[in-house]
Amino acid sequence: MPLTGQAFIGAQRAAHAGSTFQALNPSTGQSLDPPYFSASTADVDKAARLAGEAAPTLAAASGISKAALLRDIAARLDALQQPLAERAHLETALPMPRLLGEVTRTTGQLRTFASLIEEGSWVDARIDTPLPERKPLPRPSLRSMLRPLGPVAVFGPSNFPLAFSVAGGDTASALAAGCPVIVKAHAAHPGTSELVGEVVQQAVAAAGLPEGVFSLLFDSGIEVGAALVRHPLVEAVAFTGSLGAGRALMDMAAARPRPIPCFAEMASTNPVFILPGALRSGPESLAQGLFNSFTLGAGQMCTKPGIVLVPDQPEAPAFQSKLADLVNQSAPFTLLTAGIAHAYARATTHRASQAATVAQAPASAADPACPAHAQLFETSLEAFLREPALSEELFGPDTLLVHCPSPADYLRVAQSLDGHLTASILGSEDDLAAHRDLIAILEQKAGRLIFNAFPTGVEVAPAMVHGGPYPSTSNSQYTSVGTGAIHRFARPVCFQNFPDAAVPQELQSTNPLGILRQVDGIPTRDPLTS
Amino acid sequence: MPLTGQAFIGAQRAAHAGSTFQALNPSTGQSLDPPYFSASTADVDKAARLAGEAAPTLAAASGISKAALLRDIAARLDALQQPLAERAHLETALPMPRLLGEVTRTTGQLRTFASLIEEGSWVDARIDTPLPERKPLPRPSLRSMLRPLGPVAVFGPSNFPLAFSVAGGDTASALAAGCPVIVKAHAAHPGTSELVGEVVQQAVAAAGLPEGVFSLLFDSGIEVGAALVRHPLVEAVAFTGSLGAGRALMDMAAARPRPIPCFAEMASTNPVFILPGALRSGPESLAQGLFNSFTLGAGQMCTKPGIVLVPDQPEAPAFQSKLADLVNQSAPFTLLTAGIAHAYARATTHRASQAATVAQAPASAADPACPAHAQLFETSLEAFLREPALSEELFGPDTLLVHCPSPADYLRVAQSLDGHLTASILGSEDDLAAHRDLIAILEQKAGRLIFNAFPTGVEVAPAMVHGGPYPSTSNSQYTSVGTGAIHRFARPVCFQNFPDAAVPQELQSTNPLGILRQVDGIPTRDPLTS
Repeated sequence: MPLTGQAFIGAQRAAHAGSTFQALNPSTGQSLDPPYFSASTADVDKAARLAGEAAPTLAAASGISKAALLRDIAARLDALQQPLAERAHLETALPMPRLLGEVTRTTGQLRTFASLIEEGSWVDARIDTPLPERKPLPRPSLRSMLRPLGPVAVFGPSNFPLAFSVAGGDTASALAAGCPVIVKAHAAHPGTSELVGEVVQQAVAAAGLPEGVFSLLFDSGIEVGAALVRHPLVEAVAFTGSLGAGRALMDMAAARPRPIPCFAEMASTNPVFILPGALRSGPESLAQGLFNSFTLGAGQMCTKPGIVLVPDQPEAPAFQSKLADLVNQSAPFTLLTAGIAHAYARATTHRASQAATVAQAPASAADPACPAHAQLFETSLEAFLREPALSEELFGPDTLLVHCPSPADYLRVAQSLDGHLTASILGSEDDLAAHRDLIAILEQKAGRLIFNAFPTGVEVAPAMVHGGPYPSTSNSQYTSVGTGAIHRFARPVCFQNFPDAAVPQELQSTNPLGILRQVDGIPTRDPLTS
Repeated sequence: MPLTGQAFIGAQRAAHAGSTFQALNPSTGQSLDPPYFSASTADVDKAARLAGEAAPTLAAASGISKAALLRDIAARLDALQQPLAERAHLETALPMPRLLGEVTRTTGQLRTFASLIEEGSWVDARIDTPLPERKPLPRPSLRSMLRPLGPVAVFGPSNFPLAFSVAGGDTASALAAGCPVIVKAHAAHPGTSELVGEVVQQAVAAAGLPEGVFSLLFDSGIEVGAALVRHPLVEAVAFTGSLGAGRALMDMAAARPRPIPCFAEMASTNPVFILPGALRSGPESLAQGLFNSFTLGAGQMCTKPGIVLVPDQPEAPAFQSKLADLVNQSAPFTLLTAGIAHAYARATTHRASQAATVAQAPASAADPACPAHAQLFETSLEAFLREPALSEELFGPDTLLVHCPSPADYLRVAQSLDGHLTASILGSEDDLAAHRDLIAILEQKAGRLIFNAFPTGVEVAPAMVHGGPYPSTSNSQYTSVGTGAIHRFARPVCFQNFPDAAVPQELQSTNPLGILRQVDGIPTRDPLTS
């Protein structure tokens, strides 16, 4: 499949017209062909209208048929694993093993949602049987279930060119819910996006679904995204990226004449609280684990640990010394884009004016075009509490140690925190038992609490919560990873007094799909007894 | 309990200070004692701080203990049924039987949520067991469940002085979720609110819970509400009322430095689609049913049918003629407030300039202070589609007939609709089967679809959906009536690698509460096998 640089407006390719941009190889600084054409307002409108037209058909499709689409997309992506990873490597400089694995994660996610909708119970079917003899008034028959919201605009981030991009978790969960998807590709990996977009559109066509089920638009600026979020036919937004861009989309979605939900995953510093037992049981391995976590993916992970609370105790110097050695000896990292590299350089310089630099990896002649040198900062408890900027996310391979006289100080730190995706506690089980208050506060500040592990690594599983209070996300009531992510794109609809033939199969008396339902409040897979 | 006119700031009564307002008897126009003191900014701040302090205690309370609080509130309200209804009757002019029934509905709701949290499965507990041998990486232990959001600001409407007010559905579901509540009482029924507030605060004290679990503030303006929604310690808003006020609160909640969810139930015209079989089987009884529905509660119901699509067929004139008779012969209604009566008079006068008046009940010397005369309007399909104002909600005893050449025209009408709480279809089962397309569109436009019944009457049951697309609510993904309403006030939190002793009972290995959980994706009440 040669790359063309053109958007997919449904099954059609957009015109070779308008302004163009090119991806950049972050290792070499070289531009990558082909040039990509920014979508026009007319392209956005056409994609939205096609999505609106496709919505009823996709909403009426069974779980089995939507699952077949997801499985076909997954199979086609698996068949392209090597070329996909190679193009993504050119565009992101992420290592090939990581990118090959990301293809597998992407197809695994698609199959996870396929399994979920094949089984079918996710729709939360509820049936209240009629009580015609009830006084003073009879109770009607009520049956409700989750139904799709309609067209969803998906914005992927720079740091997961596959698993959170064109056919990533947002697209997979939106399609699984029965919502058409319009993806605005991230400008840093348009070639990877085009390859995946071609696959998705092929699968849509092969399934005999309307072309408007999927469109893919390119843009290096903000116009296309803004037009999408404001389009009257778009019903929801899923975004992963920076706080600035995410908040702008949130505000646009909320300011529409008819506001729509915006699920934005944005900024998280993922605080790590070290308790005495963790340092006692091995300060050097603790340092190694932390270093691995904050430099994973060159520190460009939404769950990178960016704040580390360290208690003053005898093993603390060994921990910090080992961490400093690892940082000082680390090779230069390649960041995803020139913009991210500039932002990292600027932010670390600024941070060095607010906190002390403990260690910094050296620049070298072998530096890539978009370089980053790992950095380790430290500050005191009081300085940290005084300066809110110290708890902001830096996107790159750095972290900040906050020295606390004692873990008793952690409550004040926890209270001062904004929302985060994760909060980690490292220590013995006795430490944990002694810090129930800390857990109670952190539960209010994060979506996932982690004991004795580092926060990077987000499992795709039913119990995962990849979400958290603002500013880590726009809406802490949902997760963007794991099967729960499908709930972002559905809403309950109740059918009152409808005959069996006029309601979806999920609600019919015989329970033909055999799903778990709440019948008069009791979970059961049984048919209704009439 | 003599009324004092003072707010409850936790267990304390606010000072006798500041500006005051009084409720008005809508039948007589007389002011009702005592004067009520508008809350100060300091009152709002104190109530929010008390709520913030109470939040961790209430979040840690078991379902059993929160249920005991709800049941105690219900028992105390039942004991006050007569005086509560009497005060509410003075303040609202709603009939005593309706108000006595509303006390029962209120206590029924409280007990419904009590049962839900005693059983406990609502928390959506999910457990993914660890896979230590998995390659390339082990899977950690993940356990997630819903946890409370924190302090909730509740704004009740004028039209349900008990069931949607101080101890109404929003308060009941927020307390059930484990969230402290600060109610801003509706200025039209402050005495009823004070009586209920006293009961709730007594129950909080009797339960030994922190006083900040509940506060009740008064205000005749918008300042107190705005200060509440903007307060940094308030985590969510629940509102029932007008589109103007609801949208203002939505915008405030979205514009905060840290946005919070705002669940507003606002404007709905509840379209009714009459299909041929309904007219054939009895045009006069159909007219009687419709009249009863749009004049119920003097037309001041969120589910009042305000748009009625009528096909041109032989029985249509008899239907309209009967309806006109019922309207012409109806006695004057008493509206809830002078403001609502003025707005109804103004809006019906305006509507009479856009649509034809078919019938209008006469004014009389016996008119109450806040009168409304039932009105019936009619218009054509084309005029309806041309004039968006005709589909807006009027709050009072009127409805609008839209004459359509044929039910085939209904698809255009349905497509043109904004969001509504309900949409009703009246006809034979054959009619319904012939209009699958109509159902598919209405499903996108309403939260509840009703067959062969009128929309007034909202059952408190697990399958109820009292919600719908904007502008009927701010967030179509939730219901404000029925057990699902609790989900507005909770968010998922995941515990990774936590030992059993450090997670809530709902997530512990032995499943001590016996709740339904998803273990490795499979619903079960079984303990974990280790």
